[in-house]
Amino acid sequence: MRNLLSLGATVALALIAGGIVTAETPETRMSRTAMSAAVDARLRVPDVDYRRHWVQLGSYSVLADEPTRGAKELHVVYAHPASVDAYRKTGTFPDGTILVKDVFVAKTEDLTTGTASYANVLVGRFVMVKDTGNKHAANSPLWGDGWGWAFYEGEEMRKTVTTDYQVDCLGCHEPARGTDLIYSQGYPVLKSR
Amino acid sequence: MRNLLSLGATVALALIAGGIVTAETPETRMSRTAMSAAVDARLRVPDVDYRRHWVQLGSYSVLADEPTRGAKELHVVYAHPASVDAYRKTGTFPDGTILVKDVFVAKTEDLTTGTASYANVLVGRFVMVKDTGNKHAANSPLWGDGWGWAFYEGEEMRKTVTTDYQVDCLGCHEPARGTDLIYSQGYPVLKSR
Repeated sequence: MRNLLSLGATVALALIAGGIVTAETPETRMSRTAMSAAVDARLRVPDVDYRRHWVQLGSYSVLADEPTRGAKELHVVYAHPASVDAYRKTGTFPDGTILVKDVFVAKTEDLTTGTASYANVLVGRFVMVKDTGNKHAANSPLWGDGWGWAFYEGEEMRKTVTTDYQVDCLGCHEPARGTDLIYSQGYPVLKSR
Repeated sequence: MRNLLSLGATVALALIAGGIVTAETPETRMSRTAMSAAVDARLRVPDVDYRRHWVQLGSYSVLADEPTRGAKELHVVYAHPASVDAYRKTGTFPDGTILVKDVFVAKTEDLTTGTASYANVLVGRFVMVKDTGNKHAANSPLWGDGWGWAFYEGEEMRKTVTTDYQVDCLGCHEPARGTDLIYSQGYPVLKSR
């Protein structure tokens, strides 16, 4: 193992000397992989029963392609109570804040209030983790722009399908850059009471 | 005062003797008014910051009269954490459970997810309080069918506009009689995790 690493380092140094690659050696590459796995693990869906123990920030209903059918999806966002308290005081989410967004296929019924839609089947969950100062951006393509970003399909909680937040996530959030990439206008509880 | 009450009692007894009225005396009538005020006070919007401290059971989005405009209202329901825990165990809300339903006028925007609607201006709040065994139904027209019922306009928290739950509330809830008059199909958190 030591020989292999040593050989790798030698090759890397030779390539650097030739101006072909940057100063990354197999050792630093391995270290970065481990670090990437560690920071990405922080993006998992929390084990805690957040729908019971956290604060619901707000819900977005997304209209069906055939509008008379009501909403096709309901998006419901949760944060830890301490993050909500901090936001109310400072207007920003503190470092480490976890946002979980449940994406549900909506079910629509003709009820006495009208055509009414509610959360039915879980499509998946978005997790964002606040990374003040972009400490993790260099270590993983799931981190950047002040957040970690990951989507989990269905009931999956550990293995994300996201490979690059700039490709998979940022496009939808870019219009909200003025509010730290979060659609906070839909979250009444963030306003001080 | 004692004389007036005494006179009242005498008149009441005379009327009862004549078969004209039931056994209600001014004393019991006064007592019922006080009791009614007392039980109705339990229907006020809770002073606690329930959006921060309670559990959001679920949200209903109600389609606009012109469907392409998305949702016109979002209804967001909250209960105390202990009530949620009890429901998960027993499938029913325990006596005294308070449900608060925020009714918001929705704001709709064309966002990257599509035509998306979120809570904007508070129209008012419905409060329901579970009354197992209908203990309060005889004392106030706001109680019956196993619940207390009251609506509060806008930010009002103490003075309800509801005068008779059977007239003002039951019509909309009657279709949900099979689930204790609550539209619990929209409340994913009530299912055990």
